[in-house]
Amino acid sequence: MTGFVSLVGAGPGDPELLTLRALRRLRDADLVLNDALVQEDLLQLAPKAQRFYVGKRAGRHSIDQEGIHRLLVRAAKRGQKVVRLKCGDPFVLGRGGEEALALEAAGVAYEVVPGISSALAAPALAGIPVTHRGLASAFAVVSGHAESSYAPILDGIAPGSLTLVVLMGVRTRGAIAAHLIGRGWAAHTPAAIIHGASHPGSFTWIGDLATLGEASFETDLPGILVIGEVVKLSSQIRSEQQSAAPGAAERFFL
Amino acid sequence: MTGFVSLVGAGPGDPELLTLRALRRLRDADLVLNDALVQEDLLQLAPKAQRFYVGKRAGRHSIDQEGIHRLLVRAAKRGQKVVRLKCGDPFVLGRGGEEALALEAAGVAYEVVPGISSALAAPALAGIPVTHRGLASAFAVVSGHAESSYAPILDGIAPGSLTLVVLMGVRTRGAIAAHLIGRGWAAHTPAAIIHGASHPGSFTWIGDLATLGEASFETDLPGILVIGEVVKLSSQIRSEQQSAAPGAAERFFL
Repeated sequence: MTGFVSLVGAGPGDPELLTLRALRRLRDADLVLNDALVQEDLLQLAPKAQRFYVGKRAGRHSIDQEGIHRLLVRAAKRGQKVVRLKCGDPFVLGRGGEEALALEAAGVAYEVVPGISSALAAPALAGIPVTHRGLASAFAVVSGHAESSYAPILDGIAPGSLTLVVLMGVRTRGAIAAHLIGRGWAAHTPAAIIHGASHPGSFTWIGDLATLGEASFETDLPGILVIGEVVKLSSQIRSEQQSAAPGAAERFFL
Repeated sequence: MTGFVSLVGAGPGDPELLTLRALRRLRDADLVLNDALVQEDLLQLAPKAQRFYVGKRAGRHSIDQEGIHRLLVRAAKRGQKVVRLKCGDPFVLGRGGEEALALEAAGVAYEVVPGISSALAAPALAGIPVTHRGLASAFAVVSGHAESSYAPILDGIAPGSLTLVVLMGVRTRGAIAAHLIGRGWAAHTPAAIIHGASHPGSFTWIGDLATLGEASFETDLPGILVIGEVVKLSSQIRSEQQSAAPGAAERFFL
């Protein structure tokens, strides 16, 4: 009996947005290693599995990336069917590539099960197509976690030439907006913050680059920034959630 | 009884990469309008549904975008549950936004069901993470269909600053490669063509920008270009398909 690791994308959160393959792997799993943002109702789809939390959110125990690799390899070598459950898609800013390389190096059999990236699902569920005829024929997905990482990317993109989707950028949204305006993006470029896409209580802030930094709210839900003309379609296309009026920068909740 | 339209992303092709919600909508559907690239085995998941092909591939009847809007609206107004089944994700270069606006204008109830975009799944299944620590912290998705659309986008991206994923770019790959090299991208930048990701018979060509234009093959499978340093990981990460050696430009089949 040999073990097997599935690097599985959990999608944006709603269990209905899991793929059939992801559901099958969860049902068969002996062990699930999950990230901070994976919801409890997804984990309940793996009734036989032992669960191990390997997330990195404040106030909870976490292990480092090499520790995750060791856990995956050991469990597979014990013969277990392991699901490494990652939010969104495992290969979109999720370090899934590093885990694949570690499994390859250890000679462990594995697979990648793509998931719906929040970078695409969050805008879609908020009524924002990332591409739209006449408004944007391309989009870029960028990490907003650290200036050292986003600045060279943003500096390399001509102002307004495509839709920008920024993951992990809620905390740094003021600096990102200032950076873009400094690089020549129009201050009135529409911008959205989508909180908790596909989770209960999701909500969207709509404004522009000039007001993005001032947007305030109280939430623990993860957020995604969308910047570009396509954001204005959110007032015309049905959203799975309630939207704030353009320009609003005050607190609001659903 | 009122009708309802679901704009559903079918994912890259493999029925196992459908979402649970997409499967549910297909099972309940009275009518399915599908694109050229949607496979027969996906349509069989809608046993009650009348099917209507609205694709745009050579040699088969097609209707224009306004015709699709009229069909969707009429069927919903007759009280039908309609699934508009689109390859990948409905809002990634798929004109889903236009369909949403038409349904909104007609007062028809609808929803968007995100799907796995081939722009992400094709690289993932070929062993290429679009982002990877130390190689790329961002990616852009561009349509390669027409120079008038891709040239301004590519001109706006600093050479080598992120991973480029080009949809509908197989036919124009030579012009795209020449354009990028002319803009300062290194000729030895790794490049891949992923044909038929998640379909039977999928295969990947691996080379670089200098050889991309010369790559030749005979296939009807749709192809996706990936350009950037992350492509070199495909030799180290497990693929769901067989890969050609770097630099290969001859014909090969699985």
